[in-house]
Amino acid sequence: MGCRQSFRQCCDRPKNTNVRISLPAVCFVWQIVMIILFGIFIRYDQESDAHWAEYRKFQNISSDIENDFYFRYPSFQDVHVMIFVGFGFLMTFLKRYSFSAVGFNFLIAAFGLQWALLMQGWFQSLDPMDGKIKISMESLINADFCVASCLIAYGAVLGKLSPVQLMVMTLFGITLYAVDEFIILNLIHARDAGGSMVIHTFGAYYGLSISWMLYRPNLDQSKRLNGSVYHSDVFAMIGTLFLWMFWPSFNSAITDHGDGQHRAAINTYLLDMVIGHMVHIQNSTLAGGVAVGTAAEFMLMPYGSLIIGFCCGIISTLGYIYITPFMEKYLKIQDTCGIHNLHAMPGVIGGIVGAVTAAAASEGVYGKAGLINTFDFTGKWKDMVPSRQGGHQAAGLCIALCFGVGGGIIVGCILRMPIWGDAPDDNCFDDELYWELPEDEESIPPILEDNNHMRNRDV
Amino acid sequence: MGCRQSFRQCCDRPKNTNVRISLPAVCFVWQIVMIILFGIFIRYDQESDAHWAEYRKFQNISSDIENDFYFRYPSFQDVHVMIFVGFGFLMTFLKRYSFSAVGFNFLIAAFGLQWALLMQGWFQSLDPMDGKIKISMESLINADFCVASCLIAYGAVLGKLSPVQLMVMTLFGITLYAVDEFIILNLIHARDAGGSMVIHTFGAYYGLSISWMLYRPNLDQSKRLNGSVYHSDVFAMIGTLFLWMFWPSFNSAITDHGDGQHRAAINTYLLDMVIGHMVHIQNSTLAGGVAVGTAAEFMLMPYGSLIIGFCCGIISTLGYIYITPFMEKYLKIQDTCGIHNLHAMPGVIGGIVGAVTAAAASEGVYGKAGLINTFDFTGKWKDMVPSRQGGHQAAGLCIALCFGVGGGIIVGCILRMPIWGDAPDDNCFDDELYWELPEDEESIPPILEDNNHMRNRDV
Amino acid sequence: MGCRQSFRQCCDRPKNTNVRISLPAVCFVWQIVMIILFGIFIRYDQESDAHWAEYRKFQNISSDIENDFYFRYPSFQDVHVMIFVGFGFLMTFLKRYSFSAVGFNFLIAAFGLQWALLMQGWFQSLDPMDGKIKISMESLINADFCVASCLIAYGAVLGKLSPVQLMVMTLFGITLYAVDEFIILNLIHARDAGGSMVIHTFGAYYGLSISWMLYRPNLDQSKRLNGSVYHSDVFAMIGTLFLWMFWPSFNSAITDHGDGQHRAAINTYLLDMVIGHMVHIQNSTLAGGVAVGTAAEFMLMPYGSLIIGFCCGIISTLGYIYITPFMEKYLKIQDTCGIHNLHAMPGVIGGIVGAVTAAAASEGVYGKAGLINTFDFTGKWKDMVPSRQGGHQAAGLCIALCFGVGGGIIVGCILRMPIWGDAPDDNCFDDELYWELPEDEESIPPILEDNNHMRNRDV
Repeated sequence: MGCRQSFRQCCDRPKNTNVRISLPAVCFVWQIVMIILFGIFIRYDQESDAHWAEYRKFQNISSDIENDFYFRYPSFQDVHVMIFVGFGFLMTFLKRYSFSAVGFNFLIAAFGLQWALLMQGWFQSLDPMDGKIKISMESLINADFCVASCLIAYGAVLGKLSPVQLMVMTLFGITLYAVDEFIILNLIHARDAGGSMVIHTFGAYYGLSISWMLYRPNLDQSKRLNGSVYHSDVFAMIGTLFLWMFWPSFNSAITDHGDGQHRAAINTYLLDMVIGHMVHIQNSTLAGGVAVGTAAEFMLMPYGSLIIGFCCGIISTLGYIYITPFMEKYLKIQDTCGIHNLHAMPGVIGGIVGAVTAAAASEGVYGKAGLINTFDFTGKWKDMVPSRQGGHQAAGLCIALCFGVGGGIIVGCILRMPIWGDAPDDNCFDDELYWELPEDEESIPPILEDNNHMRNRDV
Repeated sequence: MGCRQSFRQCCDRPKNTNVRISLPAVCFVWQIVMIILFGIFIRYDQESDAHWAEYRKFQNISSDIENDFYFRYPSFQDVHVMIFVGFGFLMTFLKRYSFSAVGFNFLIAAFGLQWALLMQGWFQSLDPMDGKIKISMESLINADFCVASCLIAYGAVLGKLSPVQLMVMTLFGITLYAVDEFIILNLIHARDAGGSMVIHTFGAYYGLSISWMLYRPNLDQSKRLNGSVYHSDVFAMIGTLFLWMFWPSFNSAITDHGDGQHRAAINTYLLDMVIGHMVHIQNSTLAGGVAVGTAAEFMLMPYGSLIIGFCCGIISTLGYIYITPFMEKYLKIQDTCGIHNLHAMPGVIGGIVGAVTAAAASEGVYGKAGLINTFDFTGKWKDMVPSRQGGHQAAGLCIALCFGVGGGIIVGCILRMPIWGDAPDDNCFDDELYWELPEDEESIPPILEDNNHMRNRDV
Repeated sequence: MGCRQSFRQCCDRPKNTNVRISLPAVCFVWQIVMIILFGIFIRYDQESDAHWAEYRKFQNISSDIENDFYFRYPSFQDVHVMIFVGFGFLMTFLKRYSFSAVGFNFLIAAFGLQWALLMQGWFQSLDPMDGKIKISMESLINADFCVASCLIAYGAVLGKLSPVQLMVMTLFGITLYAVDEFIILNLIHARDAGGSMVIHTFGAYYGLSISWMLYRPNLDQSKRLNGSVYHSDVFAMIGTLFLWMFWPSFNSAITDHGDGQHRAAINTYLLDMVIGHMVHIQNSTLAGGVAVGTAAEFMLMPYGSLIIGFCCGIISTLGYIYITPFMEKYLKIQDTCGIHNLHAMPGVIGGIVGAVTAAAASEGVYGKAGLINTFDFTGKWKDMVPSRQGGHQAAGLCIALCFGVGGGIIVGCILRMPIWGDAPDDNCFDDELYWELPEDEESIPPILEDNNHMRNRDV
């Protein structure tokens, strides 16, 4: 107890909010390290290498259109829009934090993606022949997914962390994600096409745990800025819509060619349609796409998608009304964007739905070949049966939860150190600290007849 | 006459604008009904079903890339962006109705799409073997099209209907659309790839007739809010641009694979380019894409597209200057977004152009196989000739007009009943009625040295 | 000297800023001319013509999916979004010039694209059999590219030219571009997939030279409007993000099918990630995609992309701090959007990188077939070697520079004539001159109890 208190005291010294030197320094070093690691490890794979023409002949591929590029690129670009415009603008709702919302979202994504390519490469696509990571369109989509989990976590701490802290959060977040994903997808062999577990559950609990560790008892000193204005809410709608519209791409981007992609897109689309509660439109609309993530490529049936969407919309809306205030008051978790309602709960629901749907799969519904394709019952897993697959899915969900909560607590501890330049309690949610803001709109003077007058005023 | 007057009096009783109970109740019931109907009727088709692998082998399809998903998905996503971002933001131009513009647009689309899948399914893709509707990417695009007609109608009544009325308008609108479409495309065998007739003409006259039935003589009491501010106009430009840019996808989304899609996209693109009148940029820019809807997949020739665009831009602009004020003053039709210029007139022009182009089609221009592919002269219609096809196109246009005007008048009557919670004449175009608005921007207080002071003020 | 002075005096007569007659007149004539030229010259090519079915059989093409439409369309739509939303909103940062930024961007693009289709067609795809230009998806992408160079030039003169001047600038710009492109790509046989040289270097120096010729010594009289407000900056972020996200599509849109498109997208994506300096986020983020334009389809290696991005970000940021003020003060070049940092310098770097990478290409890295495919060493150029190709690339860069600077000076002279309706020095950067602006937001009156009162006030 005493130990914890003295740690608290140490952390609560007056803060130096200046990041003018530390931030560029961190960026610079990070980038140099990335260039070196990319030089050592990363190469094109055979579909993007100039030897494709030879490879194509060798593999007897009839046309260039069968290059994976044409299967994945449209989905990839949609996912990319979600990451940068969707997440970025979703968080512009605060009246004076729009620059930081978009700008730091960009910072996290741009640096995170590079690290994600390396981490995921080491775990999943290291070529044993030459020790290189071979990247293709699918690697880029996976890296976008990985970064999404860190952007979800950003939602919980929006306005309260400095950019340097965000970089640290991203560095650890992506590392944890890569390990977590390797365990869930490769070791346990759970399926998670749209990432209900590995992306949303992990990311949300990671962010919430960090927010819990960094609880600010006097945050209401900043409450004048912790709200929206009319036009900032309209900007946030841009983000909401782009995130929402492109969920079908997100959930189908890395599923199997052919029917898998087709079905994942339809399932997500149907589910999306259900969500329409008005008052909380900006928030609960997104819950549906999260909840169908794991099961998107399964034979969920159209009405199954509708039911999930219906439940999630209701739960998410109730969450905003009851759970968020409860969490802030009693659990000491300050969740700026309400990611608990938007990602955490729907992510867990998605994991459970995935487990149930997998356990209930049968040859009658999928066909023999369909079952093997959908659940990848090949190689080492060729004797797997659906009911056991359901258990593995559930295990995957637990692991994602543990990684999120555990990792968040540890990283939260690190971020409590008073060296990272975060804002004081009475100055959160404010762009002024990090950006040169333009003057206010009111001050446009009228055109004067006497120009001298104006020039004098300017001097 | 007396009858009509007493109906008017009955309708003009003081209104109860409260939708806090009726709206969620309607949404809830609607959604439950949808889930049940989806459970009974809707299944995946063979391209999105897990049996695809077997189907592919059976049909001797060489590669997964020939799954319809890869033909349609990029266009589908563009159409989706048009529906939600395009139509939604197009209507944000009113200074204090942006939330409702985007939010109710979303509401109409989300609920409408589900009903459209069912209605269109029953009419067009009911499987006679098992009585189920088999859905695929093309069904989703068709549902998006169907909903577009209701969003066009929304443009005429923007700011004057309550969300409950909008739901009723959508319910009947989609039902009428499905019947209308079945008659025009299946019974009469008219071609209408981009929907000049079934989408734009029908939707616009449906909305205008409703607006006529709901004429508000004292609407100028709300005129302080019936206008734009600088930034709300910029938001509307986002909508305009996304609608405009993606017309080529809209018009090519469900045309034939191969040259049909290719040609429809080029025709629409060229036509779009012509439109450039500045003062009315936000409006007349969109008229072009509408007018080439029917003929988009025909051999319209590049210069033909330019000529249509040129005429439509001029007519649409003249419409804003002369026809809209005329309609409001003499015909008692209040058209908030000017959809008469944007959809009604260009839609009719598009129908006529389609009829003329079809009648003038020849084997010399299309080639024998091309003629059959483009106009679908197969099966029951294998003896059709282009000149008769032109007549069928013209008949289709008339039917769309009748359905629009007739349906609108009937639905308008229903909506006049004083039970739907619409706004009083002096409080239209106002978000305040339906949304919790943030405080005004001006009220951000400066950071005070003395924090106690502020806390007192807040209490 | 005396001659130059009298020219200056002639040009500096009081200006008539009224374009109410001249602008519609110019647009009208331009459009009529376009329709006639399209009627004479432009036809569909075999992939978009209704004879495709026969062509397909004749060429033994196995599936409709091999129509070029499916290779190019997703990239095309992304490029289209960049042109209209990206460039348009990038320039909305000025507090009272957002309408003109988006609107004139649209005007330039819509008229320019038609002229570009003709000019590029005459130079590159005139069918010798019938003297017609055959257009396809690739022609539309090339026209978008061509117009991009004029939009870059618009960035330098933003707020200072009238729309009529912009049309003249576009007319000459596109003509110069088509000649320039023909020389660089066809005569010299340099490769430039993403247009570092032909688009960015040419466009930027063209705009800067025009800005130099039209130097306004008293521009600080408009400085009250030459700045941003909070929400106008957020709008500009929308443009920045869409431009930035879709660079991979831009650089891969017209590269070879298969590995070429795949590699170009990956290279650009990686490079994009590097850029993350915050203060100048709106600007230097875009420099990376420019700099990898030429080399995007080469085997640049992933780490090579990172290094280029890293250097460009630094150079571009230093440019904003040191070079732009220097240019304005000493070189008399007023560069509103800072295109020198964003397009000119990165474009030149891109050209140099392309030359070096081409010179260093070897059969070991590309494979024999890959080398021939990538550099198009076929036909007349079948004896070309990589080292000589590097020289040709360098020559291409010099030609782009000459065309940009030379063309800009000549067109700048033409635009100095006092007949074009440009704004006076104390009224630049102002929408008021060209658009009917809505009243200010502050003037929304509250709802009054006494409605009569308000009605009186309105009268």
